Amino acid sequence: MIGEIIAIGNELTSGRILNSTSYFAASHLYAAGHEITAMATIGDEPQMIGKALRESVERADFVVVTGGLGPTNDDITNSAVADALNRPTILYPEIFDKIKESSSFKDMPSLEKLAWLPSGAEILKPGDRIAGYMLIYHEKPIFFLPGVPHQMRELMLDRVIPRLASWGGNNISLVKQKVFKIFGLPEPMIQEMLADLEKNNQQLRIGYYPHAAEVHLSLTVRGKTHEETEARFNEGEISIRKILGCCIYTDNGEMMEAIVGRSLREQKKTLALAESCTGGLLSHLITLIAGSSDYFLGGIVAYANKTKEKILRVKSATLNSRGAVSRETAGEMAEGAKKATGADIALSITGIAGPGGGTSEKPVGTVCFALTDSKKTRTFRYHFTGNRNMVQTKAAMTGLDLLRRYLHGLDFIDSGW
Amino acid sequence: MIGEIIAIGNELTSGRILNSTSYFAASHLYAAGHEITAMATIGDEPQMIGKALRESVERADFVVVTGGLGPTNDDITNSAVADALNRPTILYPEIFDKIKESSSFKDMPSLEKLAWLPSGAEILKPGDRIAGYMLIYHEKPIFFLPGVPHQMRELMLDRVIPRLASWGGNNISLVKQKVFKIFGLPEPMIQEMLADLEKNNQQLRIGYYPHAAEVHLSLTVRGKTHEETEARFNEGEISIRKILGCCIYTDNGEMMEAIVGRSLREQKKTLALAESCTGGLLSHLITLIAGSSDYFLGGIVAYANKTKEKILRVKSATLNSRGAVSRETAGEMAEGAKKATGADIALSITGIAGPGGGTSEKPVGTVCFALTDSKKTRTFRYHFTGNRNMVQTKAAMTGLDLLRRYLHGLDFIDSGW
Repeated sequence: MIGEIIAIGNELTSGRILNSTSYFAASHLYAAGHEITAMATIGDEPQMIGKALRESVERADFVVVTGGLGPTNDDITNSAVADALNRPTILYPEIFDKIKESSSFKDMPSLEKLAWLPSGAEILKPGDRIAGYMLIYHEKPIFFLPGVPHQMRELMLDRVIPRLASWGGNNISLVKQKVFKIFGLPEPMIQEMLADLEKNNQQLRIGYYPHAAEVHLSLTVRGKTHEETEARFNEGEISIRKILGCCIYTDNGEMMEAIVGRSLREQKKTLALAESCTGGLLSHLITLIAGSSDYFLGGIVAYANKTKEKILRVKSATLNSRGAVSRETAGEMAEGAKKATGADIALSITGIAGPGGGTSEKPVGTVCFALTDSKKTRTFRYHFTGNRNMVQTKAAMTGLDLLRRYLHGLDFIDSGW
Repeated sequence: MIGEIIAIGNELTSGRILNSTSYFAASHLYAAGHEITAMATIGDEPQMIGKALRESVERADFVVVTGGLGPTNDDITNSAVADALNRPTILYPEIFDKIKESSSFKDMPSLEKLAWLPSGAEILKPGDRIAGYMLIYHEKPIFFLPGVPHQMRELMLDRVIPRLASWGGNNISLVKQKVFKIFGLPEPMIQEMLADLEKNNQQLRIGYYPHAAEVHLSLTVRGKTHEETEARFNEGEISIRKILGCCIYTDNGEMMEAIVGRSLREQKKTLALAESCTGGLLSHLITLIAGSSDYFLGGIVAYANKTKEKILRVKSATLNSRGAVSRETAGEMAEGAKKATGADIALSITGIAGPGGGTSEKPVGTVCFALTDSKKTRTFRYHFTGNRNMVQTKAAMTGLDLLRRYLHGLDFIDSGW
């Protein structure tokens, strides 16, 4: 299908914020087999919004609109749409009830605005806190999504793409898509590993999306019948899984910190961390998950050597002979964190995030890890490329991946970027 | 002046490349005092390009078009423009001579295409290798710039913005802009505080941009002479600073963690942290800054009460009588972190990030802090709204702000969101 994307907000037209949501929408719609012919970004000006919307609906088979669904005065998408498409806003009691329940309602009665939608709007995630709806106009679907990137992404993947896949009478081409999240392999290597598969099986459409330290890979397949689509998709998925193995850590969008958290909870194991170069980033990721206090006892950010010695009981002999960034120091850090907190398992990270501090033997990006339980201590050494922030991110994610592999009984990979 | 931006290229509409050039153009045009009302992204389709261009010229005072100026088949901007504006392409000999001189011409005769421009085109950088020209159509300037980001940026800053500044006899207006970063005041409150100033001084243009837990505020002023602009701007800046005081933490784009880091370094003080609900986020922020190992000794992420007792030596009596989220526990956590690391000052954070764990006395979002040095321990209690991630972010940023205020000898504010 041919689609257009409209992003709304003065924060975009004034160049305060980079429009990454249209990019995300375009890339995933493209991967799902659609063609985007135009994308517009428009300020908070109702008449321009209305005109752009009417023109897009006329030209395209579907339209995705993002932004302007919030409660403040400059959030005017709903009223602009109501005017432009002649769909007066009405109160959606099920949304209003949820708003009244929320703690912020007393302080912000303007939240009521969120419950007034153009008539005919079909809520995309009923019962959820995410705004977003679909309108059918001239027999074409128009999706209205929030401008908040993570909410927009969630609705795009969970609602818009499946809805479009099943849309339309004559043009039915069945589409199946999944996004695999991959950690531990850089994008060019994945492309090379899958090159033969892509060449030999032209029905598979594969998209690559580098995302911080990981790569998201989309597999899209079409068929004339449900059976044909399923068969082609399964064949493709099996091939991809055979090639990439357990570097694929999820196909349902879950964060790795959530997977690790769930495994810890299921196995009734408690965790402690000892971080140096990542400065608390891994602890932060672990505690992003609600309920992480059930399995995460705590972490020590032992940035100075003195702190490594005082709290983690790393021997000064080890620090002097092997250095702060070494498998030996990492091992003692993990053991120290386990002992200090009484956790079942402990992971440590120590490395050189840069830009300073590198040597020819241990260049910037060298990071050592250790993972200890009641039986033994394993150590790892990697080298990560990129600037300080990227090294920190890759190191924290690698720590998380080591925990995932340990908890799932998978092989460890002892090579890095 | 009112402008529109059009970006051209299938690589943009297919989501293969994030459109950062329009963002760059919009932010710099805005800063220069112009208003961008719409931005379009269009695939390599001549009729759509032509139509978009004609419509933009009709609505706006100027148009910036990027992309599609190269030598390959899909670079069709020039021919689309020639058709749409009825300006047949002609050979520009000065460009063709340069192309013939270049070493690549023998292998790539298609480069000749670069020398055929719509008639009336005025080269933006004559003699340079960067493609890019201006057309005047219906007395309005249209700028055509390359899609290659660094070339586009160069022409934008060196040619487009100065050209627009001197455009049109009567309308010459000088512009001055600054962005102030504000922490500790929510956006609606800032708007209210500045409402009178905005009403009484119509020459000040103030923009509000919430950004995670902070608000960025832009002040833009125009004048007919340099002196007038400066005078008006200074008057506006003084008023804003009087009203918002030290909630403005920078006007040069610096991160708060960099400001705190610099102050610690200058005052030769070392820092330790004890974090509970923020789970290491503040440590992570501090260590984002290169060289932070000079002043940051380390942190303890004491997520479990057991860890608070074991490593930070928080008394179990305090935990039992006052609770983990209390000024008293925060105080003992900070003192414990100071002692465990030997730091000069220590900050602690303990709170309820949610979604679970709240009570009527201590609802989700309640966060206590303590800041201790060799002289005394100060404690603070705040209440933050938002989801788990937002409470964690606001709490970590508040911790950073407490350090800033302490190091700069400013008043503490003991109220939150």
